[in-house]
Amino acid sequence: MFSYTEVTEEMDIVKTSFSGNLVIVGFGTIAQAVLPLLQEHLDMPQGNVTVVSPHANRRVIHALGIKLIDVALTPSNYEETLRPLLKKGDFLLNLSVSVSSFALIQLCAKEGALYLDTSIEPWEGGYTDVALSVADRSNYALREQVLDFGRKNRNAPTAIVCQGANPGVISALAKQGLLVMAEKCGLSVSPASREEWADLACRLNIRTIQVAEYDSQVINRNKRIGEFINTWSVDGLISESLQPAELGWGSHEKTLPLDATTHASGCQSAIMLNAPGASVHVRGWTPLGPYIGFMITHNESISIADYLTIRDGDTVRYRPTVFYAYRPSDATVLSLHEMAGHCWRTPPIQTTVSDEITSGEDVLGVLLLGNPGGALWYGSRMSVEKARRLAPYNNATSIQVAAGVLSGMLYAIEHPALGVIEPDDVDHQFMLRVAAPYLGIITGEYSDWSPVQHRNWPMAEQVDLDDPWQFSNFRAS
Amino acid sequence: MFSYTEVTEEMDIVKTSFSGNLVIVGFGTIAQAVLPLLQEHLDMPQGNVTVVSPHANRRVIHALGIKLIDVALTPSNYEETLRPLLKKGDFLLNLSVSVSSFALIQLCAKEGALYLDTSIEPWEGGYTDVALSVADRSNYALREQVLDFGRKNRNAPTAIVCQGANPGVISALAKQGLLVMAEKCGLSVSPASREEWADLACRLNIRTIQVAEYDSQVINRNKRIGEFINTWSVDGLISESLQPAELGWGSHEKTLPLDATTHASGCQSAIMLNAPGASVHVRGWTPLGPYIGFMITHNESISIADYLTIRDGDTVRYRPTVFYAYRPSDATVLSLHEMAGHCWRTPPIQTTVSDEITSGEDVLGVLLLGNPGGALWYGSRMSVEKARRLAPYNNATSIQVAAGVLSGMLYAIEHPALGVIEPDDVDHQFMLRVAAPYLGIITGEYSDWSPVQHRNWPMAEQVDLDDPWQFSNFRAS
Repeated sequence: MFSYTEVTEEMDIVKTSFSGNLVIVGFGTIAQAVLPLLQEHLDMPQGNVTVVSPHANRRVIHALGIKLIDVALTPSNYEETLRPLLKKGDFLLNLSVSVSSFALIQLCAKEGALYLDTSIEPWEGGYTDVALSVADRSNYALREQVLDFGRKNRNAPTAIVCQGANPGVISALAKQGLLVMAEKCGLSVSPASREEWADLACRLNIRTIQVAEYDSQVINRNKRIGEFINTWSVDGLISESLQPAELGWGSHEKTLPLDATTHASGCQSAIMLNAPGASVHVRGWTPLGPYIGFMITHNESISIADYLTIRDGDTVRYRPTVFYAYRPSDATVLSLHEMAGHCWRTPPIQTTVSDEITSGEDVLGVLLLGNPGGALWYGSRMSVEKARRLAPYNNATSIQVAAGVLSGMLYAIEHPALGVIEPDDVDHQFMLRVAAPYLGIITGEYSDWSPVQHRNWPMAEQVDLDDPWQFSNFRAS
Repeated sequence: MFSYTEVTEEMDIVKTSFSGNLVIVGFGTIAQAVLPLLQEHLDMPQGNVTVVSPHANRRVIHALGIKLIDVALTPSNYEETLRPLLKKGDFLLNLSVSVSSFALIQLCAKEGALYLDTSIEPWEGGYTDVALSVADRSNYALREQVLDFGRKNRNAPTAIVCQGANPGVISALAKQGLLVMAEKCGLSVSPASREEWADLACRLNIRTIQVAEYDSQVINRNKRIGEFINTWSVDGLISESLQPAELGWGSHEKTLPLDATTHASGCQSAIMLNAPGASVHVRGWTPLGPYIGFMITHNESISIADYLTIRDGDTVRYRPTVFYAYRPSDATVLSLHEMAGHCWRTPPIQTTVSDEITSGEDVLGVLLLGNPGGALWYGSRMSVEKARRLAPYNNATSIQVAAGVLSGMLYAIEHPALGVIEPDDVDHQFMLRVAAPYLGIITGEYSDWSPVQHRNWPMAEQVDLDDPWQFSNFRAS
């Protein structure tokens, strides 16, 4: 088996030439992180990059020699602002918060431009608009809307949605993890279709796939009262934290959570809980040990569960439960704890830290659970020191996301007429080959951990010892 | 009305002479914090202080000029160790963790010595002995056992249990807060008995008394993975965090929590939840704003509820709900979050910080809820800077506890034959007069806060808007 771990340092970097215009919407942590990588990997003419953002750091814009359009996109101005910038073969990279992905995807389809984002976003306020039903604020609904457009426009320019670290690279790590586990189990497989990947997950008896992330980065000062700190976009994290918690819902689950809602239409791979994701605590495990994570909704929870579903006619025969267990940085844990105390109102001070980080790593992978041989965590361990050596304007978190964006862009440029696709639809070996230099140590680690381990102490709990992989066993609040 | 706030700085310090031997069991943060205060307030002969502790900081012991017996007390050695040190008129100050309060109280009664502790402790392991029922690990049970002994030995030497900051001074702050609120409501009262205090609370329509504490002290470095940090005894906090959550159960409460257990015997002022206190999150408010606290069991939750109960025969006509909503220091919040991920197993590294604290305050008071005029927080705001100016070996947290110990000791010395008493039985004006110089700013602040304020956002919640003071509204997990 091809192991990325050992070859990361020496790996050739993948290059592609791109002659179109690159329009980047938003200029936060991720845009700044990804640009140095694009300049390395894309053979582009000088002066073809334009940033559209009302908050861009002009020092960085100037240092990178790119054009800036100082505009906040809204439903009423986005067409007039973007249309002049986009023609067939151009690329719209949407790294903003609160600009509708669906609107931009439709515009790109019309203009013949490629598209990529790291999250399917609604317009400003869409995540917390109490006039909308909770279902309408879910990632499930946003995803269905975009996929539906894709199904009706199959030969449109490639638009990859949700292609960062997670969602994004995590889908490739999940596939590679399945291959690593298959090898240990003596299965000789090389899945080449969605159906074959689902069959492999089923044969390996995977009950739950946890997107297990632990950000151990720490900073050189204390969080202030009323300050929200994060190692990537504060806006971005707050937005997704306030959406309903969502998870891919496995075929082995015995009972729906009391606060769950199912969806009446669409792929039905996921359910949602009637609570903001940041308020739902789940037990997780990474090579750093067990932890409590926040079950924040993410597209990969829905898309991986959908991708690995096996159906007999209309009946679901197999599907793993998939959810995100995010343990953000210490300062972010404290920020979320404080925000919960303020009934989730956005705090007055918001700080995205990067230079302030003194040490730590972002440990991001899938935890594959259910195989009798044990749990396998497979993922990326990136230290802040290494991230800084690799590219300017980066920390451990941003470079993992940038790696996903980079690999998706290269894939879209090489496959320009796939319509709307998700990370699960991208060749996982291609994605990892491009992203690997920016993922630090890619590693698999087995564990005997389960969410019922060491439970019932110091007092009895409601734990289903007969089936450790029931979601109820993971839930800590 | 006498307001402590304005006079704190100029207040005369209360002195008492004490000619007996002072035996201190344990020599952690609090013992070190209280000794400088005792040397200031107690006229004692040289060389009459003996510390019994296996972990004492010898540098501090030497600097303070006191004797040390380097022994860990156990059920089999405590009598032979302590008896030679105690005679009539001596004082046993129990500031240890995991040494049975009940055993020491009985010994003191036999020998004629006064006694004080800051928490009713069982022997080592008693809080987490799974062979015991959850009820037997509760503070309720420990309290009943000690009070029962007190009822049978009414003229025994005074033994004050649970006399630190909270439990301890908080009972006096609760009474003073009731007087402050009474004045605002135009009630002219000066309660002189338990019945009259209960009547005042009832007349003021107090539904819930929250012990609302926010420790904003921060330190000069980051918590390490696997490290538990606290601003006072790590052992002490972990012990009480793992006991079942307990709260005084008010007569206005409509429904028992699903995970609650009532007690079959004793005063029945409290219930317990089948969960470690550190896992029960509750909404609280201090002058620093709203927050999520941990509902850790504390004697004051039970004793204040008991003290303020009004009965018609066997029927409870009035009782407030009383619980502790503790928001410890940032590093401690992170430590508890990590410990939850490890199913409450004690982490490998334990650090009590004091010199490492760079700023912050301990904001500790009662939040009186239910009066139509609004919520009143009444308590102590002590900064770490001021604590250090007042006494060596102190931070904001330790000096508040030391203030409680000091005031209780002086009361016991002046009233040496009261048997077993609790802070609620101590003259609250005396307690505050002695403690005030070490409580920083003693202040009352009104607020329109309630646990249903700003709720039902970003999605609907189960909230009882008709009765904001139902405990279910406070509970956040």
